[in-house]
Amino acid sequence: MAIVLSDNQYGKAETRVVRICRDTERHEIRDLNVSTALRGDFAAAHLTGDQANVLPTDSQKNTCFAYARERGVGQIEDYALALASHFVTDIAPVTRARVDVDEYRWDRVAVSGAGHAHTFVRAGHEIRTASVTTDADGAVEKSWVISGVRDLVVLKSTGSQFTGFLTDRYTTLAEAADRVLATSLTARWRSAVTDVAWGDAFGQVRQILLERFAVVESRALQQTLWEMGSAVLAAREDIAEIRLSAPNKHHFLADLSPFGLDNPGEVFHADDRPYGLIQCAVGREGAPDPGPAWDAPASFA
Amino acid sequence: MAIVLSDNQYGKAETRVVRICRDTERHEIRDLNVSTALRGDFAAAHLTGDQANVLPTDSQKNTCFAYARERGVGQIEDYALALASHFVTDIAPVTRARVDVDEYRWDRVAVSGAGHAHTFVRAGHEIRTASVTTDADGAVEKSWVISGVRDLVVLKSTGSQFTGFLTDRYTTLAEAADRVLATSLTARWRSAVTDVAWGDAFGQVRQILLERFAVVESRALQQTLWEMGSAVLAAREDIAEIRLSAPNKHHFLADLSPFGLDNPGEVFHADDRPYGLIQCAVGREGAPDPGPAWDAPASFA
Amino acid sequence: MAIVLSDNQYGKAETRVVRICRDTERHEIRDLNVSTALRGDFAAAHLTGDQANVLPTDSQKNTCFAYARERGVGQIEDYALALASHFVTDIAPVTRARVDVDEYRWDRVAVSGAGHAHTFVRAGHEIRTASVTTDADGAVEKSWVISGVRDLVVLKSTGSQFTGFLTDRYTTLAEAADRVLATSLTARWRSAVTDVAWGDAFGQVRQILLERFAVVESRALQQTLWEMGSAVLAAREDIAEIRLSAPNKHHFLADLSPFGLDNPGEVFHADDRPYGLIQCAVGREGAPDPGPAWDAPASFA
Amino acid sequence: MAIVLSDNQYGKAETRVVRICRDTERHEIRDLNVSTALRGDFAAAHLTGDQANVLPTDSQKNTCFAYARERGVGQIEDYALALASHFVTDIAPVTRARVDVDEYRWDRVAVSGAGHAHTFVRAGHEIRTASVTTDADGAVEKSWVISGVRDLVVLKSTGSQFTGFLTDRYTTLAEAADRVLATSLTARWRSAVTDVAWGDAFGQVRQILLERFAVVESRALQQTLWEMGSAVLAAREDIAEIRLSAPNKHHFLADLSPFGLDNPGEVFHADDRPYGLIQCAVGREGAPDPGPAWDAPASFA
Repeated sequence: MAIVLSDNQYGKAETRVVRICRDTERHEIRDLNVSTALRGDFAAAHLTGDQANVLPTDSQKNTCFAYARERGVGQIEDYALALASHFVTDIAPVTRARVDVDEYRWDRVAVSGAGHAHTFVRAGHEIRTASVTTDADGAVEKSWVISGVRDLVVLKSTGSQFTGFLTDRYTTLAEAADRVLATSLTARWRSAVTDVAWGDAFGQVRQILLERFAVVESRALQQTLWEMGSAVLAAREDIAEIRLSAPNKHHFLADLSPFGLDNPGEVFHADDRPYGLIQCAVGREGAPDPGPAWDAPASFA
Repeated sequence: MAIVLSDNQYGKAETRVVRICRDTERHEIRDLNVSTALRGDFAAAHLTGDQANVLPTDSQKNTCFAYARERGVGQIEDYALALASHFVTDIAPVTRARVDVDEYRWDRVAVSGAGHAHTFVRAGHEIRTASVTTDADGAVEKSWVISGVRDLVVLKSTGSQFTGFLTDRYTTLAEAADRVLATSLTARWRSAVTDVAWGDAFGQVRQILLERFAVVESRALQQTLWEMGSAVLAAREDIAEIRLSAPNKHHFLADLSPFGLDNPGEVFHADDRPYGLIQCAVGREGAPDPGPAWDAPASFA
Repeated sequence: MAIVLSDNQYGKAETRVVRICRDTERHEIRDLNVSTALRGDFAAAHLTGDQANVLPTDSQKNTCFAYARERGVGQIEDYALALASHFVTDIAPVTRARVDVDEYRWDRVAVSGAGHAHTFVRAGHEIRTASVTTDADGAVEKSWVISGVRDLVVLKSTGSQFTGFLTDRYTTLAEAADRVLATSLTARWRSAVTDVAWGDAFGQVRQILLERFAVVESRALQQTLWEMGSAVLAAREDIAEIRLSAPNKHHFLADLSPFGLDNPGEVFHADDRPYGLIQCAVGREGAPDPGPAWDAPASFA
Repeated sequence: MAIVLSDNQYGKAETRVVRICRDTERHEIRDLNVSTALRGDFAAAHLTGDQANVLPTDSQKNTCFAYARERGVGQIEDYALALASHFVTDIAPVTRARVDVDEYRWDRVAVSGAGHAHTFVRAGHEIRTASVTTDADGAVEKSWVISGVRDLVVLKSTGSQFTGFLTDRYTTLAEAADRVLATSLTARWRSAVTDVAWGDAFGQVRQILLERFAVVESRALQQTLWEMGSAVLAAREDIAEIRLSAPNKHHFLADLSPFGLDNPGEVFHADDRPYGLIQCAVGREGAPDPGPAWDAPASFA
């Protein structure tokens, strides 16, 4: 059976683009980590080492910087769409481009109660993300946009239980009528369209995720994730699908009884490993096909 | 359009199982990081919070430890196959199980020139990996096995060039007739069968990867990866496919000319980010279908 | 020359104590990472392996949890003082105790505009720290308290220059009249006394550090650190000394001229390594002696 | 009480110097992470922002690369001595220089059983270290050299106990007659002289540390560290002092009794946090004064 080159892609990962907007004395800052990946007619590069079709990853990096100057960053989804479209349009051998962007948020430093014009402090623990895939199939260009957030660390100190579960020979876990529920959420949602007010959408989705996590009386993390995801889809018809990945960051009640102390849900040990990992996708019947939207570079790793 | 639960799975991630074999006074050590993920009839857990079908992740963790005692670890592929088979066989709602295992290698400490019976030192930078997926479709059970290695850091100080590449408006990179080529390789190969002498196979594949990296005069990392992957498939008919992911860890020649010094390929700055990321899969025509083998939990993240 | 045991200490590092205050339905959360280190009469443990004087590190861990229940956490400085005093008072062989505490901050999740009673989201990038050293010299107990913050990431997009510096044969750096100045600040300040409203003090010092970073027109990071540190001492007479450690997180202006683009301080590459590292201490003449306050476990590492 | 500048230093941290020796077709590789820190007459830089005495950290970085070309790397202690001497000799305001070097080890890739001439694979988990401090006090130059190793991860599966310890109200730990003992050792030893065959010395010390860890029947980690440290000093009269820092990486016996299984020291859970942290120094009576040798930049952090 013949040995053949199959799936392949290449690009530049983790270009750290910082864009300062100095249009007025009140500067703005956008702080990005950008990765590009290209697919297309690259067989010769592999089979014979012929690089004639290969745009260097260094050029891809340069393009990230140049676009940040020429067109600005704006919302990361729009910036990624522009970069991806450029690669499939202007670089002949490229038939598909994928652009992933992480954004780190900054707040203004408060000076005498007012936000400073050009001094910032890194805000929050979480990272906003965007993943754009653009296909050039002949003359038609098609794009898929995934927005997201990761490292969104949340905890509720009550309003969570875990009871009535299946048991087997290896089960020792006791039922918990009241426990700490904590996770570091990764959420990614696929838009059905590509012309969205991305910043507003991000803020709305993030708020729904947080509110649902707060108000759902949780019978399990699975249920909480479903409630979070379905609320997002209910609120925004332009979202076709949302995927949620939630490590169950266990907080174990410290056993203080040897010291003559009770512990009515007050003192916990936050454990590192192992952790539960609960993952679910919430979709919409009849939604447009995801195509290659979820095909991450990670499928290689 | 109705909102629906789609893809979902859950499990226990990163259970750190250390198994000491004390059959003789000359101990053996196996040091593992085990993750399990289950799919099946878990809709109620999401939609209503009913956990009646949900085997706790804590029980999955316990199973990892118990199996390490009852059947031992052996090769990590066999250990993962046993665990996955258990979950789909013994836990009624489970239709698919995925078990990922990382293994850390230890050498014996040399005392007076001989390996000590029960003292070990962590060896090497790299990690051996296995990913097993088992489906129970009615009475028939089917498994896919992926073996691999990651963090295999290699460098060649000559025998690598990068010339004749495509240029565009954003290209500034100069051609390089002789450069340092370095990567931290992730390689994963899918077996066409499930009864393999896994330890021998791992050693053979690792050696082929290293040798090909060494002896191929590289015209680009793409070419090197293809040569590595196709050599593996040529040597082992039981491997259906191999996927390689290789960050191009750039080593930039230090410009010493301002100090009146030349630098004939001797002094380099090892850069962190950005890095090129080259990924390719090498397959075999007519190989068995991968099924869900490559569907990693990472597709959620 | 005889071989002798000299400096030694032992303890439990990184106990992850989470304390929920449930006095009312509006819960509070304190999230800590606690390390204890004891010195004293432990020669026999080293020289002969006799553990009769050695309180297990496991007991030290238990004590961290029990104290979180018995006395609560309150401000981390007070919690650390209580733990350190316990060790030198109640554990006979201990003559000095050191307790280090990191605190992670949480905000309430906003639901319909109001902070939720028992749901929290991890806030901020920075970590609040406290290091308490307590000596029991005979009947007298003496404590030193260091408060601090680390990972306080700040950036100013103008108002920073670096000119007029010393040059040598190896200097290629151009002067910069206007540059981005960014750092991830570690600041630690030693109190002259042990009865302080620690929470208020922390908030005040943090605000002074941020404001001075913002408003000082920087001629170098050294000058900025001095201005920050001396402003803290000027504002609070109860602080004897402050130490600042600031990596200069370089933001290099992207060279866009090959693409026919100018770059008037707008597009930067945020580099990882190497980084400048600027460190200075600001003290007060006649301040009480620091004693062992700064003797960190890190001196071993 | 006047506010004053006290201790301060600055430098360039983590310059990643890779040196290829191409004198013959059989290349050699040295892979370093170099940090420099200078002290001296830098008050004006802080107090007024006057940089006239400040050699840029960028120039320090350049010097690391230039020295790697001009004099080569050789042993890292010699390379650090040369750099430190340069700074105190050639840069007028500098009165003390500190140079820290980490070295990553590479093995040759084996091809057909022989080491390849120019292809290498990262070896081992551990890092070799050197820290040199040089003072220029008037015309006399004085240097202190600390060699070391870190991330040396070792484990013994028997031959370790922990019994007869002190107990208090908070003690729940059971005595252990036979346990796993594992650590990630940091060891640093100060030389009494500066003309040493550093590579040979490193190999000898590393071997003694490993052998003693293996053969000492451990009654506690304290005893093991003392035996390791005193054996090093006994073997090498040119070493004045050694400091050992050892996290007790707990391996907890898995409780398999609920599953009807015994566990005679065979299956363990490797825990992350908290960990014991045992630190001790072993010295020599009448050894030369350490001076500033142990004053690490870390004292600021």
